[in-house]
Amino acid sequence: MPTADEHLSRNLPEILDAFAELVAIPSISTDPAHREDVRRAADWVRARMERAGLDARIHETTGHPLVVGRHHAGAEAPTLVVYAHYDVQPPDPLEEWRSPPFELTRTGDDFVARGAADDKAQVVLQIAAAEAALAAGTLPVNLVLLFEGEEEIGSPGLTPWVREHAGELEADHAVIADSMMFGARRPSLIFGMRGLAYVEIEVRVGDHDLHSGQYGGAVPNPALILARILASFHDERGRVAIEGFYDDVLPLDDELRRVWGSIGFDDGAFARSAGGAALSGEEGFATHERIWARPCLDVNGMVAGYTGPGKKTVLPAVARAKVSCRLAPEQDPERIVSLVERHVRKRTPDGVRVNVHGRQANRPFRSDPRGPLFEAAARALGHVYGVEPVRIAGGGTLPIARDLAELLTPSVAVLGFALPGANMHAPNEWIPVEQIELGARSMVRLYQELAGAQDHDPSPSAARSVRDPERPHPG
Amino acid sequence: MPTADEHLSRNLPEILDAFAELVAIPSISTDPAHREDVRRAADWVRARMERAGLDARIHETTGHPLVVGRHHAGAEAPTLVVYAHYDVQPPDPLEEWRSPPFELTRTGDDFVARGAADDKAQVVLQIAAAEAALAAGTLPVNLVLLFEGEEEIGSPGLTPWVREHAGELEADHAVIADSMMFGARRPSLIFGMRGLAYVEIEVRVGDHDLHSGQYGGAVPNPALILARILASFHDERGRVAIEGFYDDVLPLDDELRRVWGSIGFDDGAFARSAGGAALSGEEGFATHERIWARPCLDVNGMVAGYTGPGKKTVLPAVARAKVSCRLAPEQDPERIVSLVERHVRKRTPDGVRVNVHGRQANRPFRSDPRGPLFEAAARALGHVYGVEPVRIAGGGTLPIARDLAELLTPSVAVLGFALPGANMHAPNEWIPVEQIELGARSMVRLYQELAGAQDHDPSPSAARSVRDPERPHPG
Repeated sequence: MPTADEHLSRNLPEILDAFAELVAIPSISTDPAHREDVRRAADWVRARMERAGLDARIHETTGHPLVVGRHHAGAEAPTLVVYAHYDVQPPDPLEEWRSPPFELTRTGDDFVARGAADDKAQVVLQIAAAEAALAAGTLPVNLVLLFEGEEEIGSPGLTPWVREHAGELEADHAVIADSMMFGARRPSLIFGMRGLAYVEIEVRVGDHDLHSGQYGGAVPNPALILARILASFHDERGRVAIEGFYDDVLPLDDELRRVWGSIGFDDGAFARSAGGAALSGEEGFATHERIWARPCLDVNGMVAGYTGPGKKTVLPAVARAKVSCRLAPEQDPERIVSLVERHVRKRTPDGVRVNVHGRQANRPFRSDPRGPLFEAAARALGHVYGVEPVRIAGGGTLPIARDLAELLTPSVAVLGFALPGANMHAPNEWIPVEQIELGARSMVRLYQELAGAQDHDPSPSAARSVRDPERPHPG
Repeated sequence: MPTADEHLSRNLPEILDAFAELVAIPSISTDPAHREDVRRAADWVRARMERAGLDARIHETTGHPLVVGRHHAGAEAPTLVVYAHYDVQPPDPLEEWRSPPFELTRTGDDFVARGAADDKAQVVLQIAAAEAALAAGTLPVNLVLLFEGEEEIGSPGLTPWVREHAGELEADHAVIADSMMFGARRPSLIFGMRGLAYVEIEVRVGDHDLHSGQYGGAVPNPALILARILASFHDERGRVAIEGFYDDVLPLDDELRRVWGSIGFDDGAFARSAGGAALSGEEGFATHERIWARPCLDVNGMVAGYTGPGKKTVLPAVARAKVSCRLAPEQDPERIVSLVERHVRKRTPDGVRVNVHGRQANRPFRSDPRGPLFEAAARALGHVYGVEPVRIAGGGTLPIARDLAELLTPSVAVLGFALPGANMHAPNEWIPVEQIELGARSMVRLYQELAGAQDHDPSPSAARSVRDPERPHPG
């Protein structure tokens, strides 16, 4: 009987064909015109799971269906839930694609397509890992593949389903297979994501725009009032100046800072990826600390008056801003929304109307980076990639991670195989060809590590074995 | 031979027919599709002037033509130039009109149409005044009616023509017939308009928008930087906090403040006309002083990031604002643009790009409210309306007034017959029916006052005579 790795190597052409099939289904969850395509993708995923040897079922939600594939290894075996999603973002702007978005196109060492990185490669490689392990007779964990079709529209159906089924799942660990590595051949394990408090602020003066000559200097200008409010959100040291904002924020752990400091986060590369922006932020913290662990406040949008070409001498009646805070692990987003609102109201002059509308509040996610899932995953990734994965946090917000951690198990890792700059949600989305196989091998190894079925061989070898002469080396 | 006033009364139906004819020509100067209509309006104006007994000619410009009508009274007679314009704003939004915009519609005591107030009534009544005076044999001034067709697009052709013909015109006085009275039956003489310095500010960080989770807290936010810049433009007392801004501004004249304080400017009515806005502004000044004589700075528009419905967690790459200053008589707009630019640059952090683009700079206009033109016009308006006209300034900017004062004569008055709230540039523009005749009588009387041909009868009578039983009284 071949090993799971051998099975993956032999079957790779067929796995990549499957990847191409899934990519070819335009499962754009936000677009009602593609409702049937999303359904087709769900059917495809279910069939593929079944072929892999899993017990695969479609679960209806109020929107697009969930597909759940299971393997039962035994009551003694640990249970691993793996989350991914088979829906994708729209491909717009179409004219910027260099190949058809729904046609898996090989360009050098990469695959290019909508969903290549986010998240169809991960759907395919997770099923391939289970299939290979089953084929080799070595899937020693109870596995639950939980693949949704609504990630790109906020996962409305997922959490209710998980809440309802949490008891029966008896999960010990969960992996969110929807993220990227730290760099090429540098795998990462993500143990935290920031929370989000998103508010809209509207400042209104009078009920219609005014002529700036006839009224200028004698009526309040809502754009200026809003500007003063926005300007009051930070102090000179780059800290958020909202009273009580940092009340619950704990200092950064010294050991964590030391470890992160040794990873080699590249400020220059980060600035380049930001389009050449100068870096700045809260004093006393490194760039990666600011993103991964510190809260912040930003303006996401603002508008007032005339914004077209040329001049218009108008005094706007209304000014609006969208403001969001990313939150540290200990912060409560609902409380932050209240603090922002109080701050804004205190700074609104008499006779001027202000409305503060809390649009979204997501709690942060934080897992234990030294827990058994992270130790097992570190060994598995280290084995396959030949380097110790970095254990980092993400600057974004992942409600799914928070929900799984609350409803299923606190042992949640975010572990995906796309690479930085993958053009997720943008034209020409890509993933290296080799990541399909390396990702699947990593998962196979993770099953074994979690089940304690693997001796802890410190010498990585698989990464080398993948670089065989038949396959080009990534540049 | 009937008097000029009798001539006006008898001919009023015909004058109103002419008004309707001119209104029916959609002379929208900004719209190339109406180019021929603007030409038709010019031809109509020229023919009407000729019919009135003036030497009328069309002068080509690079755009729409000027129409100039002249009467020569003699080398000893003073020369009065009267400016008006025969072009109009577009009628949009069409659906808000209660009658067809290019059909002169009588509604109660008012005429409603695009151009009713701005400025076709004034074109018609100015020609009617000259016609009546000529018919009565009493036009004792050299009169130059200077009517352009490009006012609504910034008068590009007017100033070059005036500069070229200034010498031959030998103007003693000029009237800008494009404004409104202080109130119903309360005529005003406007002796000053504020200047304008209009700039666009663009703050740029990086070359593309960023994910607010992946970059938030570690890169500068151009919307926040712009907000801080805008917030720095004023101090706590409502004064402009740009260094040097007030250097050239003289204190308000005590006598002027006393006179203006006695006019009865109604803050409540002003606030209502501003859509219920609370009033505010520079400390130490009344509302009318803030508008008529004090400089100010306002935001006319600003935009950054995502401004559509719902949320988008984006960090904008760029933020833009349009900012304008209205200027006191002594201020130089070019210098103000420079001061604004210096202020902005000093407040832009290192590594952030800022562009400050001076889009427009118009010098303020200020005439002598006690000069002979104002004394004569005060007598003429007092005679017709039965009340002393108020001598005030305007908060807006009138480059034509400034240009005429510089090129022709410093004796310039802004004197028009629309009423406040006339919906200029808006749907349902209107002017009281009676203003056509009262305006024309005022001009006839002004010719006489300027020529010294009128004894200074202090008892006003004409206003009463207009309110005859056949004509309804304005409400």
